[in-house]
Amino acid sequence: MGILLGLDVGGTNVKAVLAAPDGGARRRARWPTASLGDDPAAVLVGLEARIRALLAREGLAPAQLAGLGLACAGLIDSADGRLLSAPNLRRWEGAPLGRELSRRFERPVAVENDVNALVYGEWRLGAGRGTRHLVCLALGTGVGGGLILDGALYRGRRGLAAELGHIVIARDGRRCPCGNRGCIEAYAGARAIVAAARRALARRRPGHRELARLLGGAPPDPRALHAAARAGSALARELFAEAGRALGVGIVSCINAIAPDRVILAGGVSAAGAYILEPARAEAAARLMDPTQQTLDLRLRALGDDGAALGAALLAAERA
Amino acid sequence: MGILLGLDVGGTNVKAVLAAPDGGARRRARWPTASLGDDPAAVLVGLEARIRALLAREGLAPAQLAGLGLACAGLIDSADGRLLSAPNLRRWEGAPLGRELSRRFERPVAVENDVNALVYGEWRLGAGRGTRHLVCLALGTGVGGGLILDGALYRGRRGLAAELGHIVIARDGRRCPCGNRGCIEAYAGARAIVAAARRALARRRPGHRELARLLGGAPPDPRALHAAARAGSALARELFAEAGRALGVGIVSCINAIAPDRVILAGGVSAAGAYILEPARAEAAARLMDPTQQTLDLRLRALGDDGAALGAALLAAERA
Repeated sequence: MGILLGLDVGGTNVKAVLAAPDGGARRRARWPTASLGDDPAAVLVGLEARIRALLAREGLAPAQLAGLGLACAGLIDSADGRLLSAPNLRRWEGAPLGRELSRRFERPVAVENDVNALVYGEWRLGAGRGTRHLVCLALGTGVGGGLILDGALYRGRRGLAAELGHIVIARDGRRCPCGNRGCIEAYAGARAIVAAARRALARRRPGHRELARLLGGAPPDPRALHAAARAGSALARELFAEAGRALGVGIVSCINAIAPDRVILAGGVSAAGAYILEPARAEAAARLMDPTQQTLDLRLRALGDDGAALGAALLAAERA
Repeated sequence: MGILLGLDVGGTNVKAVLAAPDGGARRRARWPTASLGDDPAAVLVGLEARIRALLAREGLAPAQLAGLGLACAGLIDSADGRLLSAPNLRRWEGAPLGRELSRRFERPVAVENDVNALVYGEWRLGAGRGTRHLVCLALGTGVGGGLILDGALYRGRRGLAAELGHIVIARDGRRCPCGNRGCIEAYAGARAIVAAARRALARRRPGHRELARLLGGAPPDPRALHAAARAGSALARELFAEAGRALGVGIVSCINAIAPDRVILAGGVSAAGAYILEPARAEAAARLMDPTQQTLDLRLRALGDDGAALGAALLAAERA
């Protein structure tokens, strides 16, 4: 198999990852999304130029690519690689990106929802290798999800499946941006954790002085909170633990419904590692029924921030 | 295709259903489970004799059967039709029922978990026809579940999937027999509804006198409560509505995770019909995100109590 090229297309930046077929020897590039163009036609021209320049920089010809994958947040028609609804990429909507890029580079192209691409990448090359049924929870600003079931990416009706961040853990719980109450996302996404940190500081919860000192005036984003937790802040650790326990309740629902071989935590918040993983594991273990409890296999992602790009590239390569 | 023969094997009775390939022209029989024998060898002899007698009564030869299916509560190794763990059929555990019955009748035999068989039956012949992704919630004493995903029965790791009654709706909610708190089953199964009715009567909730009068001293089981609801008891209606609203919260988690084409309510409690279906629908509709809300298709079962037997028979027929 040839080289993998995956693009993780966000509202702010496009992250490009070139990798060997096993995911190794990665090379990266980053382009401001706005720099690519203002309408679908311009975006296609911009993408083509950037990709050709990246390949030239690395001394590669398009023919050496096994596949080109685009991972985008939103609803995607994966048949012709068209963005149906992408809140961060409104100006890209409607363009048959997959078909057009495939024509221009004469290589297989896949356009896939970013969390679907992420679970696929982790399944094939990362923390999900060797499983048949895999659940991935992506803790970003919100909480997304991806499912590998019976050895294949599961998309559900109209590609709407795996909104695992909107599994309810508390029917009368916190309001969620989706309009419901008590979703996992309202507790375990970066937005929720930051809001909880702000409340903890404003309400002067025990340890607030130490946390404020460690933050040094920086906003309490997950990265800064993680640094504070490592530096010894009991309050920062408790904030991750609260998110982790909520996540653990949701993981129990996932396991009881889906009986996966493994559950993976990914997304930026998962960089907090054991501070969120261990409370999630403890909460889930305490709540699972006996036979399933023995199968609780909960792990952190293995591909860092590259999982979605690599997964999209693999999906493209396997179309060939 | 030939005649379908399905057995729904419970701890008290075995219900046998003979049907045409389309599920029509059904004939039924019922045998006390204990009458079949005390150990796996005796059970096989007893089952064979009962089945031969039933076929003779209907003027059928074994060769006319498309398949013989057994639906049993519990964990089943569907490869050789062996009950691995069946709390209501402890004395049947370990016997290779599928393999042995297939040898004795020279017909394809399937042994399947009862709720898996139920969702399969409803999918092929009942309320789930025409769907690709189907969720079934079986409201019996507890609450079970079944999943058809991408046009196939989904079993998950070691056949443990689709324990949809143990999706959590309230992390600090009612205790569930599974050891967790706040599961759907703790609100919407017959056991939970009966307990809620007893509490409502003991605590003299509004309408308790009318309900007690309508029950006439009978235990408040779902059938009696349904009769009371039809006779006008506002309290009986509210008890079903409370179960339905809890179910609706759980259905939202199912839809957000799985994005099915349809959700079916089955099991004995579903006989309460609109008294439980409509509150579930209203609760789910109020909580679903926009794009999924438009796809909420929630229906009652169509095969009555025969779904599991027919589904097991179909699974057998399709093995041929």
